[in-house]
Amino acid sequence: MHLSRKELDELNSIYKINFVNSITGYKPANLIATKSKEGISNVAVFSSVVHLGSAPPVLGFILRPTTVPRHTYSNIKETGYYTINHIHKAIIEDAHHSSAKYPEGVSEFDKTTLEEEYLGDFFAPYVKDCPVKIGLKYLEEYQIKSNNTIFVLGEIMEVYVEDHLIEKNGLINLTKGGTAAINGLDTYAVPETNKQLEYQRPKK
Amino acid sequence: MHLSRKELDELNSIYKINFVNSITGYKPANLIATKSKEGISNVAVFSSVVHLGSAPPVLGFILRPTTVPRHTYSNIKETGYYTINHIHKAIIEDAHHSSAKYPEGVSEFDKTTLEEEYLGDFFAPYVKDCPVKIGLKYLEEYQIKSNNTIFVLGEIMEVYVEDHLIEKNGLINLTKGGTAAINGLDTYAVPETNKQLEYQRPKK
Repeated sequence: MHLSRKELDELNSIYKINFVNSITGYKPANLIATKSKEGISNVAVFSSVVHLGSAPPVLGFILRPTTVPRHTYSNIKETGYYTINHIHKAIIEDAHHSSAKYPEGVSEFDKTTLEEEYLGDFFAPYVKDCPVKIGLKYLEEYQIKSNNTIFVLGEIMEVYVEDHLIEKNGLINLTKGGTAAINGLDTYAVPETNKQLEYQRPKK
Repeated sequence: MHLSRKELDELNSIYKINFVNSITGYKPANLIATKSKEGISNVAVFSSVVHLGSAPPVLGFILRPTTVPRHTYSNIKETGYYTINHIHKAIIEDAHHSSAKYPEGVSEFDKTTLEEEYLGDFFAPYVKDCPVKIGLKYLEEYQIKSNNTIFVLGEIMEVYVEDHLIEKNGLINLTKGGTAAINGLDTYAVPETNKQLEYQRPKK
């Protein structure tokens, strides 16, 4: 199938959203959890978390102000802290349910089997039993001119990873942990196998 | 395993790069292909492609000026056009080899079995036989203060998707197409199954 930009723009809205959301390939499946100053927690699925650098360790994600739960953003701005937690095989249904639009004052933790967990003195809640849990501090943001989204950056303050997932060279083996990937908006895949390749040098 | 930020910063460099690169979960596995004004093509693996919006259809990716082949960036800036192509099961080894650092004037297409393909009058080459191929036009970029990376945005100008991958609701079924996901820097996974979930509404 070939679609010109004109044909793409003319697709019906639901079809277009499904299509363009799946066009980039598999996306990371994460839960971002926050807590307001008033102590109301919030957790929501994000498929746009992206690695920017390792030293310092900086991660970003995209917020669509019109469609995404605003609580995540307002809590991050208000408190400075949030966590990123891997969606894994056992919690896919409940994680996905956190995309339902609950009114102000309702925590998605109370509407699902997802459990909030406070570790050390970190302000934001982690999601219990996730194979990888990352505590972040808000760094900066960029207002994207093209479409009014916001690119939010944070630095990693601490990390919890299940021991048995970490390979000798530092790789976190996601397949061993049952981490999920997202296809489009609502389709989840859990890879069963993976293959590590060598560092590549030019052929002679 | 628990790591504080201090412990993370003190990890040895290779270990740290592998660790932090795998911490966000599965990443999309794409080849970005470009051509210089002089006609020299270029193709390189990128795992940072991210969806920003569907109307208009905008995608972004992160460039690390110090580590990533600069040809991709200079060709995009010089010509305005590039393509994003899904890495799939049959080409994983050759796609990964495109990460080798070849000198100026050498096309990775000549050093791998990857074939460049020119479709319609689009300036940049596509990668032949990829299940999803996207033609983009450069839109804008953001210089990231935290770590000097560049966030490059483009708008989709045209798309080629294998017919049999497209579901009735517009979803491109990546599992049917054998699209790969990347774990860290060098580990590839190809999910065999997936599951589509319902649109979620608040529980009563």
